[in-house]
Parts: sequence; structure tokens; C-alpha cells
Amino acid sequence: MTVRYKLTLEYDGAGFIGWQRQAVGVSVQSALEDAALKFSGAEAATGAAGRTDTGVHALGMVAHIDLVRAYDPDTVRKALNFYMKPHPVAVLEASPAPEGFHARFSALERRYLYRIFNHPSPPVLDRHRVWWVSNPLDEAAMTQGAAHLIGHHDFSTFRAGDCQAKSPFKTLDDLCVERCGHEIHIRARSRSFLHRQVRNMVGTLKMVGEGRWQPDDVKKALIARARAAGGPTAPPQGLYFAGVSYEEG
Amino acid sequence: MTVRYKLTLEYDGAGFIGWQRQAVGVSVQSALEDAALKFSGAEAATGAAGRTDTGVHALGMVAHIDLVRAYDPDTVRKALNFYMKPHPVAVLEASPAPEGFHARFSALERRYLYRIFNHPSPPVLDRHRVWWVSNPLDEAAMTQGAAHLIGHHDFSTFRAGDCQAKSPFKTLDDLCVERCGHEIHIRARSRSFLHRQVRNMVGTLKMVGEGRWQPDDVKKALIARARAAGGPTAPPQGLYFAGVSYEEG
Repeated sequence: MTVRYKLTLEYDGAGFIGWQRQAVGVSVQSALEDAALKFSGAEAATGAAGRTDTGVHALGMVAHIDLVRAYDPDTVRKALNFYMKPHPVAVLEASPAPEGFHARFSALERRYLYRIFNHPSPPVLDRHRVWWVSNPLDEAAMTQGAAHLIGHHDFSTFRAGDCQAKSPFKTLDDLCVERCGHEIHIRARSRSFLHRQVRNMVGTLKMVGEGRWQPDDVKKALIARARAAGGPTAPPQGLYFAGVSYEEG
Repeated sequence: MTVRYKLTLEYDGAGFIGWQRQAVGVSVQSALEDAALKFSGAEAATGAAGRTDTGVHALGMVAHIDLVRAYDPDTVRKALNFYMKPHPVAVLEASPAPEGFHARFSALERRYLYRIFNHPSPPVLDRHRVWWVSNPLDEAAMTQGAAHLIGHHDFSTFRAGDCQAKSPFKTLDDLCVERCGHEIHIRARSRSFLHRQVRNMVGTLKMVGEGRWQPDDVKKALIARARAAGGPTAPPQGLYFAGVSYEEG
């Protein structure tokens, strides 16, 4: 018998080979599981709402972890943070998981944020936190382009070649583009996403923002249902897994 | 004859031994002057509004640079950014300096921001950008403590031992404490500051925020006019040189 905890994590994607444990390299999952082993003395299985790629950050990733016995949740948070200290990751909150909770399968909605730094000079303090686009971007045109993607569609155009989802159909609940000073923020909401869907949509909207594509070209790309019809993939350092929603309980 | 330009710079203090050129190590000044030499083929003298310490960041440092001939200001900005690329610093703006302009001596007001991350879990994405204080801070008490420091005073209590200013008297125009989510922001405005004055004031206000000092103890510390009467020095990674004002011209 193990006891399941729900964890909310922040991490810097530059420090990891992504969420998922692999044969070589430090993943967020391996850092978390190794810390749990040191703390509890036993192997601890984990799962996460999203399996972020190398370089992608998280502001509020939700994971579950199965520990060999019950601890005070704040002890879990502090102990995991203590043992993960060398890595750029922290547990922000820990709580006992509700009955039947699974970080991935119980998720009702996932949210991503993409930050573009749109300024003639390069970013400095946010160098590894944004995508630098020096050409002025037209956020109104990007908003028009994004509108074509909202809804239930076959997103094959925005799907990575190695995507393991059975179907290319997803329902994109929102894709909004907003200028915040020198930054363009793109926020996406969906029950789930295809592999690299957000970065592929962002790379396409950037083409629109630069005036190289018209907003309606996004619709043409979508209905082409072929990756080659879409824009380039935006780099990972601008992408943040922002949050997840679950049913209350 | 040289031509003087006014530059606005952003830099990450973690990448430098501070503003000022020294015999060993990379300073912001040496990175800037080395870039100017590569670009213009001649030595270029520089000066800055503030000589920040090792580890202190700048959001908007103003410097001047004397180049051997006149260039288009945007060429100056781009060329300096190109040659400074290995270092975490960028020229945000470059313009011809007004007649008689000196980045240090013409400054009328300097502004600093200090960021405290006040959360039980450690900062991740902002790990090198904030001071982590895990105990809850009372920002209202800190504001009361700060009020004792605003105005014209002998700031010996908040002055580093190696401060080269002739007088310990300064006029602090503002010192405001504000909670922004999980952060406490402390903003200071003055014509000029003593060496480490902001970090020493912040370290003192943190004692008040934790309830270890009463707000009135800040006044007692001030009138003691001795560094030993003040709180500890806050670490450099939370401090940002935020901006400078000059007379229009």
C-alpha cells in the first residue's frame, strides 16, 4: 500500500532533458523520484499532467507521487525540495491526492503560455526565458490568425512527427495573443495537446505577426492537415506549462 | 575630437564583477569598452550613472561613451550588442548625448528596485533574480519602518565601510514597500546613494518584516549613525539599478 500525494512543481527547462525519465540525463521525473528515494528510503512512482520537452519550463506542473507511507504534506514538500536542491525545480505545494486521482488522466484542462520578446535589442535578464523576435510583430493580425485554430479540428499540421496520440483531433478552447510591453504572450487552453502543438502554432502565428503570412493563411495551413503546410517550430525556451485543472475533490 | 553617445543598458549582474573595470575579471565597463574598440578601432572612454557591485543587475543603467567619430545611433546600438554577445548585457537605446552630458554628474535622480521572494518554497525560474526569504514578511510594518528613512539624514548606519562619498548625508526621496503576489518589492529614489545603502536598508527592513525588529527600531538604528546598529546587508542578486533621470535636453 502506498499513499498518493498531489504536487505542484515549478521548473526551469534549461536544467533538464524534459519531464520524462530516460536512460541518460537528468529529467524532472528522475530528479523527483531520486529525491523521494532519499527521503522515504523506497522507490516512488510518479506521473505528470504533461510530458514537457527538453528546455520547456513549468510554472505550475501537477504531478502525483506514491510514497510508502503517510507523511505530513508539508514535510513531503520540504523534504523533496531539500533533496532536489542541486536542480532548478521546486515543489510549490503538496497535498494528499483525492481518491482515484491521476495527474495525467484526471486532468480536465491544460494551459500553456508562450513568451516572445519583441524588441530590437536582445533579451538579457530573460535570455533563457523567451524567444527573441526583433522584427515588430502585429499582434492584431496574430489574433486573427489564432482565431482559425480555436475549436475542434484535425491538428495534423501542428503535430510533431513522433507524436504518439491516436487521433490528430483536439478541441482548442482558447488561443489568445496579447502584447505586454515588449513581449507578446500567447496563451493556449485545451483538455490536451498533440506533441509540439503549441510551439508549432506559435511558429505559425509569428509568420503572421511579421506580415509574411496573412491571417487566413493559418486556416489554409490547418485544412492542409500536413506538418509541411505549417510554420516553423518555435524554440522551447519561450514555452511554459502554466497550469492544469481537475474536478474538485 | 570624440563624439559622445548616451546608452541605456540592461545587464545580468551574475555575469560581471560589477560595473567598474578592474585589473582582473569581466566588468560591464570592460565588456562595453572592449566592444567599442572592436567596432570603432579606437579606445573609447565610458562613464555610468551608478557603479553597481558584483551581482547587482541593471534594468536601465545609463552610460556615456566617447567614440572617435559620428555614427548613426542605431548602428552604435547594434554594433555594441554584436560585440558584447558573449556577455549578459545589451544596449537598449543609443542616442547622441546632449551638450555637456555626463552619465554620472548630470544625473538628477537614481532609482533602485529590490525583489524579495517571500514563499515557503525556493524560487526556481527567478533563482538568481531575487532574495529568498521563506518566513512570511509583514509589508505594512516594513512600510512603517521605511518611513523613518525618507528625507535628509546622516545615513552612516547604512553605509559600507569602503564608501568613498565625502559626506554621509543624503536625501532619500522615496522608499516604498509593496507586495506583488509572492514578492515584496522595495523601491528607492534619491539623487545619489552611499555605497551599499539600498542593500543595507533592505536588510534592516527585512528584520522588521519578520517581526524581529519593531518599525521604530529603524529610527533608532538611523540616529545611532553606526553600521553596527543596522541590519545585515541584503544579497546582491535581488537588487536592480532601475533607472536615472536627467534634465531634458
